[in-house]
Amino acid sequence: MAENRPPDPGRRSERSRRAIYDAALGLVGEAGYPRTTIEAIAARAGVGKQTIYRWWPSKAAVLMEAFIDLGNRAAEQAGEAAYAIPDTGDLAADLRTVLRATVDELNDPVTEAPTRALAAEGIVDAALGAEFVEKLLEPQLQLYVTRLRAAQEAGDVRADIDPRIALELLVAPLTHRWLLRTRPLTHAYADALVDYTLHGLAAR
Amino acid sequence: MAENRPPDPGRRSERSRRAIYDAALGLVGEAGYPRTTIEAIAARAGVGKQTIYRWWPSKAAVLMEAFIDLGNRAAEQAGEAAYAIPDTGDLAADLRTVLRATVDELNDPVTEAPTRALAAEGIVDAALGAEFVEKLLEPQLQLYVTRLRAAQEAGDVRADIDPRIALELLVAPLTHRWLLRTRPLTHAYADALVDYTLHGLAAR
Repeated sequence: MAENRPPDPGRRSERSRRAIYDAALGLVGEAGYPRTTIEAIAARAGVGKQTIYRWWPSKAAVLMEAFIDLGNRAAEQAGEAAYAIPDTGDLAADLRTVLRATVDELNDPVTEAPTRALAAEGIVDAALGAEFVEKLLEPQLQLYVTRLRAAQEAGDVRADIDPRIALELLVAPLTHRWLLRTRPLTHAYADALVDYTLHGLAAR
Repeated sequence: MAENRPPDPGRRSERSRRAIYDAALGLVGEAGYPRTTIEAIAARAGVGKQTIYRWWPSKAAVLMEAFIDLGNRAAEQAGEAAYAIPDTGDLAADLRTVLRATVDELNDPVTEAPTRALAAEGIVDAALGAEFVEKLLEPQLQLYVTRLRAAQEAGDVRADIDPRIALELLVAPLTHRWLLRTRPLTHAYADALVDYTLHGLAAR
């Protein structure tokens, strides 16, 4: 019987870790970043403050890991490798796949409030913003660089394109719509971005 | 002698209006949107609270006008019509002109703090965000729609392009870099966005 087994410390600390992530994401979504304290995360997660301090140096570090974990779990649920961009040889199809998946993630109500709270704080707090860009955003953007470089090598993308700039035509409009809520984020919109970005607006 | 003239009520209220705009922008940049109150704006501007309530229904309304005024003054100083996109018949050149001007505006340290504070608040406060999108952002984006439609009529842009989506390839990357501080905002970057957007990434 499970009840008779001695507690498994690995499982117990995995449970605490998950509770801390959930508490951190919940609090930042409800109360905003400035009012999310280590104390409040510990209280909601049902762990001691020292448990959190033992594992993470700051609340920014807790939140960063919570977001990375959230992204990994979302990708697992979708049956994808976390943050991977496929390379089937068909660049347009691969970009549609990844942009549609990004649309679905951005439209997920579970992640919306914490992600907005953190984005808002990063916009006014340069140090926090820089940390999240370096640790969360830039690694994701580098996957586009890798895929676009492969497409250049395959002769599908112009050789004079800088992939680190080019990816922004795909990624920034999604973020812009989501952050500013200008228009709906749909798969059709994702497809249009891929078409316009690859083939350009100019008449031939 | 000027001292002997009776006070000019038009000039006096213009001076108060400017003082209120400056106070509102200064406070929101320093203290953030939630802590910018009508009382604090009035105190810093040296006017009575009732003066502000007589002219504007809310602090959001004061800030909106202050931002519109800021944009108009920046454009005047640059010797341009406010928010106009030129139509010289050369679409690429016209877009480079307007994107370079946007880069200069975004890099202006005077407007940075208040604009960031307001953007951050609009990201978490949906009602405020919607008001700013409708009254400030969307009218500016519509100027791109107009310019791209003219280019379609001139045969320079593909007929199957939706201008309201297409403009986001130009505008969103600038906003993305500025909000998230991923990379520097330069004229060379603006020029690359115009080239990539018009001609596409795909090899011919």
